[in-house]
Amino acid sequence: MARPNVSRQKVLDAAAELAAAKGISATTVDEIASAAGVAKGSVYYNFESKEAMYSLLITDALERAALRIRAALNNAADGTAVATVVRAFLMGIDEHPAAGKVVATEMFRLDRPWNESLAAQRDVFFSTLQDALVRDGRESSVSDAAAVFGAMLMVGFERVVFSPSMSLERAVASAAR
Amino acid sequence: MARPNVSRQKVLDAAAELAAAKGISATTVDEIASAAGVAKGSVYYNFESKEAMYSLLITDALERAALRIRAALNNAADGTAVATVVRAFLMGIDEHPAAGKVVATEMFRLDRPWNESLAAQRDVFFSTLQDALVRDGRESSVSDAAAVFGAMLMVGFERVVFSPSMSLERAVASAAR
Repeated sequence: MARPNVSRQKVLDAAAELAAAKGISATTVDEIASAAGVAKGSVYYNFESKEAMYSLLITDALERAALRIRAALNNAADGTAVATVVRAFLMGIDEHPAAGKVVATEMFRLDRPWNESLAAQRDVFFSTLQDALVRDGRESSVSDAAAVFGAMLMVGFERVVFSPSMSLERAVASAAR
Repeated sequence: MARPNVSRQKVLDAAAELAAAKGISATTVDEIASAAGVAKGSVYYNFESKEAMYSLLITDALERAALRIRAALNNAADGTAVATVVRAFLMGIDEHPAAGKVVATEMFRLDRPWNESLAAQRDVFFSTLQDALVRDGRESSVSDAAAVFGAMLMVGFERVVFSPSMSLERAVASAAR
């Protein structure tokens, strides 16, 4: 990963906000530079292309979420492991709602240059969720992990987009069931 | 809705297949016409634009799914209502996997002309799922409906894309829990 710098993070934040509002395809590098308050050259100094920028944004967000839920699982008590993992995931969306929306949007797409990194991180998510299900003495096949993953993704999305008043604990209880 | 005709259905099927494989933005009307085996003029005879075509495809798929799960609920026994609804939804994806993939992809996007019809159908899905949860004596708030919806969407997607050997009953058991 390149060394972090201020412009670079500003660019990534602006890219996330714009794509969350109107999609990646409709977002231009000019708009990103303008929203970040940097020159267009500075965007291209930090990123090869718009694709490379969104690829990094999505990979970073997924890695961060994967690390976060794995750490939560390591500290979870048996019997509440799934709830602990779901809570950690939803708190991650609370901290980075724009990145969360972009990832949710891209999750189901099969036509993107970052598809491979999505697939790799999907495996990490699924194996963490399967471990959590085992820790709670629940069924833990791939379909069970997919069900919890889908539930926490949709509940998180619902909370960010349509129902901001939904409490974290209400969301955890629904998604962890 | 316009009167159905053979070319029209061929065009919609080709549009679904192409968008499922590579996304709506990357799909051109020329490719759709070619895959459907019709002249480009015939596409524009049936649809104003690519956007209008995908809008109809998505609206049709959602309406079909919403009617299907509502009918399933009406015939479901108390105690197995959620499982019955989830099974009906997953069987719908089995019948129309390409349309299912396109809808899953678009579900989380906020930047599309068909966003309003997605939002309207989302309400129908949520209220059907809430009714099913009530019929099973389960918690039935919006977050619970979102959890079941996310679970069945992700399990269905997983089954279509990554795990085609997952049985319907295995998928239902995981998503309806």
